[in-house]
Amino acid sequence: MKLATFLPPGEDHPVSGEVRGDAVVAFTDGSTVRDRLATGDRTPADGPAHALADVRLLAPVPDPRVLFGIGLNYRAHAEEQGLDVPEFPIVFTMAPSASAPPGGPIVCPPVVRRLDYEGELVVVMGAGGEVAGYAVGDDVSARDLQRREKQWTRAKGADGFCPWGPWITTADEAPDPHDLQLRTWVNGELRQDTRTSDLVFGVPELVAFIRETNTLEPGDLIFTGTPSGVGSAMDPRVFLESGDVIRIEIEGLGAIEHPVA
Amino acid sequence: MKLATFLPPGEDHPVSGEVRGDAVVAFTDGSTVRDRLATGDRTPADGPAHALADVRLLAPVPDPRVLFGIGLNYRAHAEEQGLDVPEFPIVFTMAPSASAPPGGPIVCPPVVRRLDYEGELVVVMGAGGEVAGYAVGDDVSARDLQRREKQWTRAKGADGFCPWGPWITTADEAPDPHDLQLRTWVNGELRQDTRTSDLVFGVPELVAFIRETNTLEPGDLIFTGTPSGVGSAMDPRVFLESGDVIRIEIEGLGAIEHPVA
Repeated sequence: MKLATFLPPGEDHPVSGEVRGDAVVAFTDGSTVRDRLATGDRTPADGPAHALADVRLLAPVPDPRVLFGIGLNYRAHAEEQGLDVPEFPIVFTMAPSASAPPGGPIVCPPVVRRLDYEGELVVVMGAGGEVAGYAVGDDVSARDLQRREKQWTRAKGADGFCPWGPWITTADEAPDPHDLQLRTWVNGELRQDTRTSDLVFGVPELVAFIRETNTLEPGDLIFTGTPSGVGSAMDPRVFLESGDVIRIEIEGLGAIEHPVA
Repeated sequence: MKLATFLPPGEDHPVSGEVRGDAVVAFTDGSTVRDRLATGDRTPADGPAHALADVRLLAPVPDPRVLFGIGLNYRAHAEEQGLDVPEFPIVFTMAPSASAPPGGPIVCPPVVRRLDYEGELVVVMGAGGEVAGYAVGDDVSARDLQRREKQWTRAKGADGFCPWGPWITTADEAPDPHDLQLRTWVNGELRQDTRTSDLVFGVPELVAFIRETNTLEPGDLIFTGTPSGVGSAMDPRVFLESGDVIRIEIEGLGAIEHPVA
């Protein structure tokens, strides 16, 4: 099942439902996406249907409780940064206000000069520490803040720095998360093109590592790290500018596309 | 006004109210502590009163949206760690499940061997980026994880690692936050004894710095950093053990006391 939260045409109250083909169908049982993640209920939606092209997709869980991020979790990305592959997962958290709709836009705070994209596989938690599904995310990063501030909270967790979606593909329907093509384009130019088989720490290892210290609840997110091909590792380095459009696609999970405001 | 959330004797449903002398008086208008922080409403409580000794105090905001922490923010603490005073505030976030009642207990995850206390002034946000009040907190830290994991999310944000309270003293009634005595005892032995005048970055600077990248909402917390006197800086180093009791008191804001389970 593909779980989505959206605004129907002309409406401003979020509706939850499931994506079927080119349409999104509303749930009529009052359940939110988080409810469905928590219960595992997969009863098909039977409410009003809208063409996907006509709705505004929101973040599938609009108000996530916590966003975990993972640093340097692709071998080729550690290499392009000139760093060793880490011995343990590098875990950080981002403020919940970092969560943003798949369509963004990304708003660059005035303090940030070097804005970069990071296409990522996003793990969405269910109940009891189980993985409920997967999505596509952009762990937008302020490289200048990241370099001078050793804790990455501001560099990676600024308001709206985590567009994700377009929907959550539940684990029972998702392809093997460790063997997916992940591609990122900026203004149509391919920048990242990797398979998730290059991940240093896979999904079960990340979940187990975080759970050593922290309870994971339904709707909690883990941004699993970005592969090689970020702008700051290009020669010469290229950073995002106002008007740029980032598109990230993961095999079997859909695509997200958002501009820099 | 001293805002508190508590369980009346024999009850398991949280009640919000205000502390007056040795009693806590319930609000009858249905407002939570977060509501009061958001609106600035200071209408006195007029509901049932209980002796403070008879209730169980919860975290004043039981489910904070986000907990920011600040590293190395006292001159003498930077010195005892052999580190320079930072040029910019070191900002990190902790998972919301780190929030715990003032009475704890602190539960040490099996992966942690070197548990330490950090008595801290806690800033509680109101609406529009204004500071609504202050409280006392313990930014419990796993020194082993903190040393080997460069991002402090697990070391400082593990479940229950942030006991705080005992209530929120609203800013209009609080003494000058930059001139308060802060003391920490472990099993009755005085370990930290400083004034907040030793803070490197004061409250307005921390709030402004975080707001450069992140919206602060009512009930959001900023743990402003710990002064000198932590166990890991003693000679020889001393870490917390099961059964230890930590008491932290800040002049004018009350005291919290919690055991290690």
